[in-house]
Formats: sequence, C-alpha cells, structure tokens
Amino acid sequence: MSIVKVKTEGGAYSIHIAPNLLQQVGTSIPPDATSVVLISNPTVFGLYGKTVLQSLEASGKKISVFEVPDGEAYKTLETLNSIYTFLLEQRLDRRAVIVALGGGVIGDMCGFAAATYMRGIRFIQVPTTLLAQVDSSVGGKTAVNHPMGKNMIGAFYQPIAVDIDTTVLGTLPEREIAAGLAEVIKYGLILDAGFFDWCEQNVASLKALEPEAIGYAVQRSCELKAYVVSEDEKETGMRAILNLGHTFGHAIEAGLGFGTWLHGEAVGCGMVQAAELSARVCGFPQADVERVRALVAAIGCPVTAPDLGTDKWIELMQIDKKAEGGKIKFIVMPGIGQAKSQTVPREDLMLVLKKTTQKG
Amino acid sequence: MSIVKVKTEGGAYSIHIAPNLLQQVGTSIPPDATSVVLISNPTVFGLYGKTVLQSLEASGKKISVFEVPDGEAYKTLETLNSIYTFLLEQRLDRRAVIVALGGGVIGDMCGFAAATYMRGIRFIQVPTTLLAQVDSSVGGKTAVNHPMGKNMIGAFYQPIAVDIDTTVLGTLPEREIAAGLAEVIKYGLILDAGFFDWCEQNVASLKALEPEAIGYAVQRSCELKAYVVSEDEKETGMRAILNLGHTFGHAIEAGLGFGTWLHGEAVGCGMVQAAELSARVCGFPQADVERVRALVAAIGCPVTAPDLGTDKWIELMQIDKKAEGGKIKFIVMPGIGQAKSQTVPREDLMLVLKKTTQKG
Repeated sequence: MSIVKVKTEGGAYSIHIAPNLLQQVGTSIPPDATSVVLISNPTVFGLYGKTVLQSLEASGKKISVFEVPDGEAYKTLETLNSIYTFLLEQRLDRRAVIVALGGGVIGDMCGFAAATYMRGIRFIQVPTTLLAQVDSSVGGKTAVNHPMGKNMIGAFYQPIAVDIDTTVLGTLPEREIAAGLAEVIKYGLILDAGFFDWCEQNVASLKALEPEAIGYAVQRSCELKAYVVSEDEKETGMRAILNLGHTFGHAIEAGLGFGTWLHGEAVGCGMVQAAELSARVCGFPQADVERVRALVAAIGCPVTAPDLGTDKWIELMQIDKKAEGGKIKFIVMPGIGQAKSQTVPREDLMLVLKKTTQKG
Repeated sequence: MSIVKVKTEGGAYSIHIAPNLLQQVGTSIPPDATSVVLISNPTVFGLYGKTVLQSLEASGKKISVFEVPDGEAYKTLETLNSIYTFLLEQRLDRRAVIVALGGGVIGDMCGFAAATYMRGIRFIQVPTTLLAQVDSSVGGKTAVNHPMGKNMIGAFYQPIAVDIDTTVLGTLPEREIAAGLAEVIKYGLILDAGFFDWCEQNVASLKALEPEAIGYAVQRSCELKAYVVSEDEKETGMRAILNLGHTFGHAIEAGLGFGTWLHGEAVGCGMVQAAELSARVCGFPQADVERVRALVAAIGCPVTAPDLGTDKWIELMQIDKKAEGGKIKFIVMPGIGQAKSQTVPREDLMLVLKKTTQKG
C-alpha cells in the first residue's frame, strides 16, 4: 500500500492507495464513531456496495446506507437537503461518520454535507473514478452546484482519510479514464516536467490501466496535490495553479450544460487553451503547446472547444470563482512544469478563443 | 467605545460596542474588499438601512442591498438559496464582504451564506436585537434550520468584525428585550456569580434600557462569551456550557413550531428547568432555583414550559445536536456561576418535566 500524508490547518490525514482496498475501508472508521452512514449512487453501490458494507460491518458500528441519484445534474442543494433529511431521520449525532463511495459528485456533495451537518461531522473519501482519485477526493474542496455556476456553494473541509482502490478503475467507461488522465497530466504541466515526460512515454499503459503504471500515476498525482494543498489549503495563493485549464473548462461545462462533457474532458480541452494563452502572454513555446495538444488527444480527450459564442464565453469565465474585481485571472505556464496566476489582456483571450473553438 | 477581542483558530476579530455605532459601520470594511452587500430584512432596513448605507458608501466600495423576509420561519435553505442567487447575479467574487444587519436570523443565515459562498467570503455582524448582540453575533456559529430541527445545517465561521450599536435597542418590542436579557443572565449563571448578582440588582434599569446598565450588560456578556469561544471554538468541550437551558429551550421552540416563542424566551424558561434539574442531579440549592425563577420572571420571560407531552419532549431533546449515542446530555449547575455537561437519569428528567410544564 502507498500512503501519502496530507497536512493542512483544517486537519492532517492519510491517503491510502492499493488494489482491492475496498475490503479494508472499515479499518479507517475511528473507534469513537457512534455510527457510520455510507452514501453512494445506485451504479457504484451496485458494483461495490456489498464489499464496502462487509468491511464497515466489521467495525461493529451501526451502519446505514443512503443512495443519491447518479450524475453531476444531481449535485444540487436539493439533493444535499435529501442527505440532511436522511441523517436527521437516522438521528445521526455529531460523532457519526460519513463514508462517501463514488466519484467527484458523491465526494464533493458528501464532503459538504459533512462540513455542514450539525456544523461539521467527520467523513471518509472512497473515490471510485480516476478523476476523483487523483483530484477531487484530495484537498478538502467540497461543494454543490448552483444553476448559475459550478461549485459556487461549498466549504474547505478535510476528510479524516482517503481510501483509494485502484482495482475499481477497471469497470469505468473509457471516457472517464480519459477525463481522469487529463488531471494527471495537469500535475506534470504545473509542477513536474519529468512526470509530464513520463506520462507521454507511458500513455498507452495508462490508457490500458496497467496496474503498475496507473498505481504510480495516482500516487504521484496525490503527492503533488497534497504538496500544493499543504502549502495553501484555502486557495489564497499557490493552490490556484491547480486550476490550470479550469476557467476555460468550467465555461465549457456551464455553457453546454453540466454533464454534457465530463469535467476532466473540459479540463483537458481547457489545458490546450491555457497552453495557447500561455504562448501568447508568457512565452510558453509553441512546440510545447503541440505536445500538450498531442498528449490530451492521446489520452482521448477533446482538444477543440465548443463554439459558445464570444459573449457567452466571457460571461461564463467572469462568473468563475477565480474572477476578482471583474478582471479574469488565468493560470498560465512559462514552461512545462511551471505555472502562475495572472490577468490577461482581453485581445489575447479573444485570439485564443478564436483559435481553439469549433467553427459552427 | 468598548472593544472586546475574540481569538479563535478560525480568526481573530474585535467586537465594537457603542451608542450610535451604525454611523461608523463603513470603517469596518477592509481596504481590499471589492464590493459590499448589505443583507437585512424589511423591518430593520426600514429603520436603519439609510444610516448604514451612508456609512458604507463612505468606504467607496460598490454597495448592493438584499432583503430577506423577516422571521425565524425564513431561516431556511430556501432563503439561503435566494441569497446565493443574489450574490451570483451581482457577480460578487471572493473578495466581496457581506454586512449582516439584523437579529439572530439575519446573522446566522448571512454568516452561513458567507461561510459557503464560493467556499467562504468575509462578513461583518451588525446585530440589532439584544439577543444577537449578547449571543448569536459572537463566536462564529452560523446556521439555518431544517424542518426536523433548529440550526441543524451550519458551520463554524468567524466574522471579521462585530459592530454593536446599543442605541438601536430602543426600538425593540418589550418581548425581545426580555428574550435578550435571558441570555445575559445565562452568562452570570454559568460563569460569573457576581454578574448574576449585579443583574438581580439592576433588573429594573436593564428592562428600562438605561444606557449605562445595558452597555455594561452587553459588554460583560460579550467578554464572557469571547472567553468561552476562545477556549473552545468548535464546541468539543467547554463551549457546551453556553447551552445552559438550550436543550429544553430548543424542544419548546420545535414543539410549538419555530417562532411561537422567541428563542430567548424558550432559553429563559429552559434555564429554570435546567436549575430544577441541577437541584436533582448535582446539588444546586433549591433557594437558588427560586432566584433563577424569580429573575427570569422579573425580566419578563415565561417560567412555565408548555405541555408538549412527555414522549414529544424526549423525542425533541434527543434529536438536539448535543445528543450523543442516544443519551441526553444536559448543562447543569453545581452552583450559580458554575456549569458542566453531564448525562442525567431519565427519571430525574421526567420529574423535572412534570414539575416545570403547564398542565393542559
């Protein structure tokens, strides 16, 4: 088992990474927990519910199960409220522990439920998508969507453990693997040129989910994310570099309607757009833009953005959480393995949108 | 002006207490704020909106105003969502500051909105009821109600300042003054026997809102609350003593329907019940029970609880946030000025309910 430590002001915890780890989730339940509620969706619960329940039952705690509908469209205040109601019906007190079994939607929403139920109870992330394993389950960002923007309602709230079973990736659709690999590549782009090279060289093994390759990719991604989050839990500075490709990506998701493109697909395309923007504003080599485009395409993500119309693009990007005082800040790269936040001239942005979006 | 400092892990800030302080709220706006949103209800905004707006406009920031309906019945996820929608429509970013002008409902709900909008923006409490001035505006407890329980959804989240104008108390109905004084008395009961004596001696001046008396009562209450909150921000230990009378009080509020009794009225009555319970389980002198009953009556709060039926009482008290593992914990007093948390035998609770509730 690989263990990655995360230390933040909001708490210190371990990420455990291993094949077949679902069978051991029960060992993460703290002795003083009064009860455990497993929250999942019907798809994931159908596949792994029995295994996780068996493991949790070994902890000897009172266990209850709640299923929420599957998909980003249900990451809403309304679904969140159904979780609160269930927790209250079960009379769960402040020493109850939530186990979030699923992808980013489940993890973000359960984390926010844990952050706000009775002003905060403990929770454990058990991410079952590659995207959640390498990104959303680590670092304590929790949220639900608002019709006017993704993740607009949320909290910084750390789990007490993250249990990552890499075996479960075998049941994911190919699109979801591609979406997860986009975030893996991102870590190389913003922090570790050597890891980016490694991804280029091992893209076939990663796509095929070869255990050694995917295990290393998950571990390295978690290490790099844990490093960033430990430095800046609440995104007052450095953490913003994790948003490479995300301002473009969120606009794509919101513009097409959440769920049309997977989050990772939108980020993959957004990273190509961010690379083009970096070439215009901070000297990112055009040859490296092409490397980014080629690798994003090789993992199976789109590299051409939808034509939302310029006004809609601008509108959607300004409402993003990274907007401050009406100016749009972007994460840009001076080179592979380096990233920084800066505001960019509107005309450069226009040219990049023109170059990277599909003509209607 | 009196200044009381509050230091917690979640932030350090000052409580400013003075007559006519509304005219200076603008000076609490930090220079790096991008914009300010004033949130209030029609009643309070009608009385003080103009004064506060003038002060805020002097800060030179973009100001917007949002009104929510008046009353505990609107302290819901639905109203909260209307705040989020307004903030998004105004395109408020992470450097916006919320100013909460109103009583506990406004303060709790705006605090929770600030805690969760874009995962946290800054907010300032400007409490306009006595209850909010001495209790809910200090300490960072934010929340909304759920149909199944009061304050069940919330967060610990500290304001950046609390601005208390004692002049505004002059427009409050007598019931609200009584409700606020219940919490003032509470601080004496749990922490400061001398302050309890002082309240007994000055009850007429307090009810008449004589400036010197009420100013001292607010200041001493804030000092005592700030001390407790600095020791235990997240209620893992000592902070629980602030809940004296609250387990009974919450049951009254929920049992009759939120808003029938004012929170402070329910707490006032709950303190009489807690005193009776303390006499049974930890030697609180019966003579002091009568002092508590007499003072609660003298400030104008009810001292006899409604007859909810025993089963309903137990059900409502078990679902309270202070319940753990099905047992009911109470804050009890060995003597005036001392308080502790303990579980109590069911039969003592039954006897206290029998003695303190109205016969139908």
